[in-house]
Amino acid sequence: MTAPSNRSLSSLEQKDVFVRRHIGPSEQEIAAMLTDTGASSLDDLIEQTVPAAIRLPQPLATGESRTEQEVLAYLKSVAAKNTVAKSYIGMGYYPTLVPNVILRNILENPGWYTAYTPYQPEIAQGRLESLLNFQQLSMDLTGMDLASASLLDEATAAAEAMALAKRVSKNKKANLFYVADTVHPQTIDVLQTRAEAFGFEVEVGPATVLSDESIAGKDIFGALFQYPTSEGDIVDIRDQIKAVQDAKGVACVAADIMALMLLKSPGELGADVVLGSAQRFGVPMGYGGPHAAFFATRDKYKRALPGRIIGVSKDTNGKTALRMAMQTREQHIRREKANSNICTAQVLLANMAAFYAVYHGPEGLKTIAQRINRYTDILAAGLSKKGITPVNGHWFDTLTLAVDNKDEIVSRAQAAGINLRLDLDGKLGVSLHEVVTRSDIAQLWDVLLGEGHALEIDNIDAELTAADASSIPAELQRETAVLEHPVFNSYHSETEMLRYIKRLENKDLALNHSMISLGSCTMKLNATAEMIPVTWPEFGELHPFCPAEQATGYKTMIDQLSDWLVDITGYDAICMQPNSGAQGEYAGLLAIQKYHESRGEGHRNVCLIPASAHGTNPASAQMVSMKVVVVACDKQGNVDMDDLRAKAEELADSLSCIMITYPSTHGVYEDTIQEICDVVHQHGGQVYLDGANMNAQVGVTSPGFIGADVSHLNLHKTFCIPHGGGGPGMGPIGVKKHLAPFVAGHTQFDLGNENGAVSAAPFGSASILPISWVYIALMGGIGLKKATEVAILNANYLVAKLKGHFPILYTGQNDRVAHECIIDMRPLKEATGITEMDVAKRLIDYGFHAPTMSFPVAGTLMVEPTESESKVELDRFIEAMLSIRNEISKVEQGDWTLEDNPLVHAPHTQYDVIEADWQHSYDRKTAVYPVSAVAANKFWPSVNRIDDVYGDRNLFCACVPMSEYE
Amino acid sequence: MTAPSNRSLSSLEQKDVFVRRHIGPSEQEIAAMLTDTGASSLDDLIEQTVPAAIRLPQPLATGESRTEQEVLAYLKSVAAKNTVAKSYIGMGYYPTLVPNVILRNILENPGWYTAYTPYQPEIAQGRLESLLNFQQLSMDLTGMDLASASLLDEATAAAEAMALAKRVSKNKKANLFYVADTVHPQTIDVLQTRAEAFGFEVEVGPATVLSDESIAGKDIFGALFQYPTSEGDIVDIRDQIKAVQDAKGVACVAADIMALMLLKSPGELGADVVLGSAQRFGVPMGYGGPHAAFFATRDKYKRALPGRIIGVSKDTNGKTALRMAMQTREQHIRREKANSNICTAQVLLANMAAFYAVYHGPEGLKTIAQRINRYTDILAAGLSKKGITPVNGHWFDTLTLAVDNKDEIVSRAQAAGINLRLDLDGKLGVSLHEVVTRSDIAQLWDVLLGEGHALEIDNIDAELTAADASSIPAELQRETAVLEHPVFNSYHSETEMLRYIKRLENKDLALNHSMISLGSCTMKLNATAEMIPVTWPEFGELHPFCPAEQATGYKTMIDQLSDWLVDITGYDAICMQPNSGAQGEYAGLLAIQKYHESRGEGHRNVCLIPASAHGTNPASAQMVSMKVVVVACDKQGNVDMDDLRAKAEELADSLSCIMITYPSTHGVYEDTIQEICDVVHQHGGQVYLDGANMNAQVGVTSPGFIGADVSHLNLHKTFCIPHGGGGPGMGPIGVKKHLAPFVAGHTQFDLGNENGAVSAAPFGSASILPISWVYIALMGGIGLKKATEVAILNANYLVAKLKGHFPILYTGQNDRVAHECIIDMRPLKEATGITEMDVAKRLIDYGFHAPTMSFPVAGTLMVEPTESESKVELDRFIEAMLSIRNEISKVEQGDWTLEDNPLVHAPHTQYDVIEADWQHSYDRKTAVYPVSAVAANKFWPSVNRIDDVYGDRNLFCACVPMSEYE
Repeated sequence: MTAPSNRSLSSLEQKDVFVRRHIGPSEQEIAAMLTDTGASSLDDLIEQTVPAAIRLPQPLATGESRTEQEVLAYLKSVAAKNTVAKSYIGMGYYPTLVPNVILRNILENPGWYTAYTPYQPEIAQGRLESLLNFQQLSMDLTGMDLASASLLDEATAAAEAMALAKRVSKNKKANLFYVADTVHPQTIDVLQTRAEAFGFEVEVGPATVLSDESIAGKDIFGALFQYPTSEGDIVDIRDQIKAVQDAKGVACVAADIMALMLLKSPGELGADVVLGSAQRFGVPMGYGGPHAAFFATRDKYKRALPGRIIGVSKDTNGKTALRMAMQTREQHIRREKANSNICTAQVLLANMAAFYAVYHGPEGLKTIAQRINRYTDILAAGLSKKGITPVNGHWFDTLTLAVDNKDEIVSRAQAAGINLRLDLDGKLGVSLHEVVTRSDIAQLWDVLLGEGHALEIDNIDAELTAADASSIPAELQRETAVLEHPVFNSYHSETEMLRYIKRLENKDLALNHSMISLGSCTMKLNATAEMIPVTWPEFGELHPFCPAEQATGYKTMIDQLSDWLVDITGYDAICMQPNSGAQGEYAGLLAIQKYHESRGEGHRNVCLIPASAHGTNPASAQMVSMKVVVVACDKQGNVDMDDLRAKAEELADSLSCIMITYPSTHGVYEDTIQEICDVVHQHGGQVYLDGANMNAQVGVTSPGFIGADVSHLNLHKTFCIPHGGGGPGMGPIGVKKHLAPFVAGHTQFDLGNENGAVSAAPFGSASILPISWVYIALMGGIGLKKATEVAILNANYLVAKLKGHFPILYTGQNDRVAHECIIDMRPLKEATGITEMDVAKRLIDYGFHAPTMSFPVAGTLMVEPTESESKVELDRFIEAMLSIRNEISKVEQGDWTLEDNPLVHAPHTQYDVIEADWQHSYDRKTAVYPVSAVAANKFWPSVNRIDDVYGDRNLFCACVPMSEYE
Repeated sequence: MTAPSNRSLSSLEQKDVFVRRHIGPSEQEIAAMLTDTGASSLDDLIEQTVPAAIRLPQPLATGESRTEQEVLAYLKSVAAKNTVAKSYIGMGYYPTLVPNVILRNILENPGWYTAYTPYQPEIAQGRLESLLNFQQLSMDLTGMDLASASLLDEATAAAEAMALAKRVSKNKKANLFYVADTVHPQTIDVLQTRAEAFGFEVEVGPATVLSDESIAGKDIFGALFQYPTSEGDIVDIRDQIKAVQDAKGVACVAADIMALMLLKSPGELGADVVLGSAQRFGVPMGYGGPHAAFFATRDKYKRALPGRIIGVSKDTNGKTALRMAMQTREQHIRREKANSNICTAQVLLANMAAFYAVYHGPEGLKTIAQRINRYTDILAAGLSKKGITPVNGHWFDTLTLAVDNKDEIVSRAQAAGINLRLDLDGKLGVSLHEVVTRSDIAQLWDVLLGEGHALEIDNIDAELTAADASSIPAELQRETAVLEHPVFNSYHSETEMLRYIKRLENKDLALNHSMISLGSCTMKLNATAEMIPVTWPEFGELHPFCPAEQATGYKTMIDQLSDWLVDITGYDAICMQPNSGAQGEYAGLLAIQKYHESRGEGHRNVCLIPASAHGTNPASAQMVSMKVVVVACDKQGNVDMDDLRAKAEELADSLSCIMITYPSTHGVYEDTIQEICDVVHQHGGQVYLDGANMNAQVGVTSPGFIGADVSHLNLHKTFCIPHGGGGPGMGPIGVKKHLAPFVAGHTQFDLGNENGAVSAAPFGSASILPISWVYIALMGGIGLKKATEVAILNANYLVAKLKGHFPILYTGQNDRVAHECIIDMRPLKEATGITEMDVAKRLIDYGFHAPTMSFPVAGTLMVEPTESESKVELDRFIEAMLSIRNEISKVEQGDWTLEDNPLVHAPHTQYDVIEADWQHSYDRKTAVYPVSAVAANKFWPSVNRIDDVYGDRNLFCACVPMSEYE
């Protein structure tokens, strides 16, 4: 209490109070840590660490720090510029009722949204179970053998289906993918973009062509149908599917998840791949996303399934345990052979959809689907009475209406605050959904027919009941049961549901428990203030294809965010469409290729990638048909400049670009970065600077300043969008002016260009953009820079404390690391047999999530503490690491054998320590309370170490009997 | 999937879907349970259970069931009728910024809000620690030795202070309590009501009188001062305090919690008791509540401290452990000697305030207080320049202004959406607060001076800095440090704060984990949909004394809720003011007394109370100076009718009323209830029917129908307001027409009568009323009745399953219990030495909160499952009880000794089982996983059984050193 009593207003306003909330260490802690790292100030540390040539000469223009109160009040006023109309647009996006218990306890709960991708399954069994439920749901509804744990959206899922088809089709010479013209237009848009980059042909035409024998003339590797069609019809596509398969093509179906409750599954119709959006299972439209796409296929294609798949395995005690299956399939292993770069998924949203199904159960979902269908029947019957008969002969929820007074109807709709589907020539679309009530039907009649129509819902309903007809063709009505697993039939009271959610949450370690210091993943604070606007209806309830004038709030917010990101990156423009980092890479490379083409240099197709690159980089390059050439790294881990010069020169004629991460994936500010840019530019190439490590750049340097041409930004790393347990993410790209004309466009929204789309929605996962907006608004330019500085301090503090005990693999000038560091476990492994995996699992016993394992270098751990971790937490981590080092010494010295020590048996569960018969040479306390701080806040892994090999050999990706959990 | 495909709309709309979410058992489960209980249907069960004479002849008029969507949309439109103006009214209620991390993770988190009062401290260490922080905060700011864990509001806390003063004053003959006229008017109102009932005199006058020697003529047992005064002045009251003490009176001070950051503490000024509202520490105004009041006093008065107090003790392993101290002080033990009936506290809100202090820390709080004070200085300086000098010579945040154009200013204020304090003749009050920013000051000048005043904030700020003067008298500026404990200095980053909140949450068992089957407490589902409106700003941000026309949304909602409660209770009117059940009892008895007085029968002062009554009943009777006469119960636990008749007749001249609970606290529908009412009425008495067991009445019978005159309703039991870990509650009363003129009034709000107030705010804790409103709106009349039926079914199902193993103490007709049942542990204790306490603690090992222990009968457990528990959960509980019964048998049979068995050592912690040296005759698995279901979802108590005696002998109620938690 030493503050002066007469303080001026400006010192009392504390505009920077959020900066201090976001940054973990206090000023006193920062001072102490600087001393330990041997720097005299943060400025001094930055000077020692970041090469002088790339340091920004002036501060960011991105405003002052602001208070949470101020920022949220302002954003609320911006959000208020959006108009929440009633949406009947359909096209894959539907109003839905988020069950309140899910809203509060999943979407708004840091226990769920701050978790990381479940790479450490022993402390992730909760979300793994939920994702398994998502897979079971997908399998049941699609009639397929196997499903993945979510893709990014329906359109990109369709593109993944196309890529899968190409990969597995027996018609190896075929290059054509046929797309029914009844597919949603944005899906066709994304398919065309993707196909062009791959060098595939896409033909769009009537589905019937395929069964009309005319298919015989086409050499196809696959085809895609929409079920029901985009305009609402329900067509029997069995013949077409068979025709595709007869031609050795892969038959893919994009299906509506709600309709599938009532429709015969595509699997029963013979499909090979079924995909679609799970949005309408309780995930707000959010102006386009984020939502989970489902993706299911036949068992025979399981090795080709894109994205993550959760599988059932066993732990070392034989207990059932879940984990991500076939991780060796992931792009970071496939690299040059990949034709998918999918990485971040939509875990949080897949979980919401899965819980929605658990909440409603099969009977509840069927009732919802029947209600939607009944309302559609009633609406149609009323219209027919008045002479408007739907164009589609059958329907689930969508009517397409040929009208001659379209303008008149549209103006009545506008006046009523109603959005209809308007992009069909001379026709209107009306798609109903879960939220519709009686009064909405009456209002729709008013709009479509004019008032005074005298239609009565109850009368029509009675007539329909009497007629006993169905708008769904008899031969396409579902007869098979779905969701029979107990998990979908047990938690239908809210109390039971809440407890089930909580039970799963408790199994998972998230940022609300302790540091998750994942190198290259930047697990920082996801502040509540940043999360709050996400669930404002003004952001949540907009359809992505609503009229632009209804989304001026979004436009204002997105434009401001773009301006800030322009300032932060040093680029000239931002494209907000890619909905993951990998999508950003792909979008960026597309822009580069189109740029070359625009200059008549479309032949440039070599992508240089340093050996240290992220695995997504080569996968993304593959997706735009680039040839990957690896540039060597020297033994310090830096790009071998001689090799770079030689290859750039040798390949000058065909050089398209280099993909490089900065600071490098080795956690170092290479001082040759500008030279690298120069060399590549000299030989006609472009520089793609991977933004994964942007958290070490903001306010200190920038990709634009360094000399790069394009980068993606992982908003879910650097800009505070939470990882959600493995998604959502957002990967907008920044580009220099010359590339700006070549970023993504969109068929349903004028983005100022004619380019193809990369995502289903014009602004990707728009509804999570407020998170990054709020973060930047709160921090301001000075706060953002300080965050970067403290991120660097935290990493160098760890190095200072750990380097006497573990080798730190790479350092840059003055022996400094950037914002992360690589701890080399190989010498210890050599000496003792204890592996990096043992250390990672042992950290769980200490209450920590493991750092990144064996990336970018096998046998290492990469630690990124971020600026949000306090000194107290870092010291806890250091204590754990030193204690583990001591445990390794005991193995080294023979106190413990390599077969029986707490490292190789880690992690230890409750079940282990309650066994009467303790078999180990170390005691229970050493096993589970290795240091005293653990006892005060123990996090129990719910299973022992998991056997990945068993799981992959015995792949099982559906829900397991409940008894196995006991 | 057997539902018909052609279902009519009405069957698909599922208007009753929430009823099925709220009620735990599914229809199938209900059918199975009916079979087990030997009833053929719910109707049959009710006929068997509830005496025919009291069953309602017709269904409730309370509407149809409605969907969550419908109800929330409608309530949102009602809420929109409220006007959220900027409040500068002050008077103890201030806009505040709820830290977002607290909003989401405490107030909106079932882990905190669904917990029960921490009677089982081993599974409540989280909120106990937070309440200890609240006490530490209270002690630090007030300068007192000891503080309690919250009272209901500032005004009732003042009334408790008066009662304490009467109790402890050495001037035993004194009957006068002196109240400074600078005390908030609503506090004076409540004091006068309370004093009148107690038979004390209250004199309101200038504080200076007390030091003017004129005190010498007064025989006072205490006095109350406001600090700063209601009109904002800061007065040195040392002399007055001394004068009170010289007269052997107790000097009480009502203080502003935020001002105390800058002011010398009342303790330093010599006060004996300090109290106040903690609202402005991060709890929304909510149109009056709920908020926590703090209450602190000297060590010598600790045995007289009203309400709950958290103390530090040790567990059986010597580990530091917290628990409610001196529980023997609680009113349920004091009974006839009580002069306080306080029971429910404001735990959730006290926790919010405590976390607010943890979040900001001493420096942060001081900065906020200084900012508020600085803005007030700037506002005052500007006004003074323009000729308006505040009436008060000093201030913290409140200026009282004598103006001759009051009407003009008020109309400008209205136009600007600003509320000033208007209840002062010829004067206006302006109270600033945490939310004020620069633009607000400018706007206030505009309003107070008219536009064009040309005042500049920065200039005035600079002048103030130069002048170095203070609006706080030098001799009253705080010099002592506050909040030096590490807990207030460690969690200032949001990450650390979130983890601290989570760490505490994880220690507490709440409804999100398992059943809390507390007899007489009705721990049912608190549905998310019910909670959502509580934090809508339209409900949260209203000042209780704002103009009535700004609160028409509240009025609409409260009127509807009243109408529904009238229907449900069978009464004629509802008074919504009492903010706890005990307050409701008191308010009801007050109405009875005033009714008697109105008929010239004010001498009636005998209150009959059956031996089985709730402990609050006699305490409440004491508070209105009634003489309690106990009516005997027969051995079936029912009221002894002969004794009742005899006493009623004998005391007919002085009979005021009977207080009776229905169904009885023995869990039985006594069939004599109507006769009891008749007997009492016959002899001129009134019938107070305690609403604690209303959950067994709704829709089936009603107190009005039965023949009672008045009841309180525990909205936090029957009507879904969550218990919040021990509060908030709401205890509105229903009355028959003849009592309606005698319910509480309010000095600041026209409630249609001139009666005194019982709570600080006109509608008590108004902001939680939407919870009950939503519940009733969702359920509708039919749903409510079904809930009651299933609550009865669940209790009778438990009886059916348990009665072969444990004696069930009381049953009614057909051997049925009502909605709860009493398991008699005395025979087993007799036989084995195992106590009800052992069983209660052993249930923790099985993952359950203990039922109510030793109430209403010592040596028993009273179980109330409520309708919200599913058969699965009940079966888990039954399994646990049967397993425990089996364990008791092993003791009985000598397999285990009485000294060493899992019951007497329960609960077992993690720490127990990791000890290498297991000392027990049963194994670890038996200790902590006694049945297999536990292993899948283990809840670990954080300490072993707590030593209450040690804690009470060594009373320590402040924060403990951090090291003790390790």
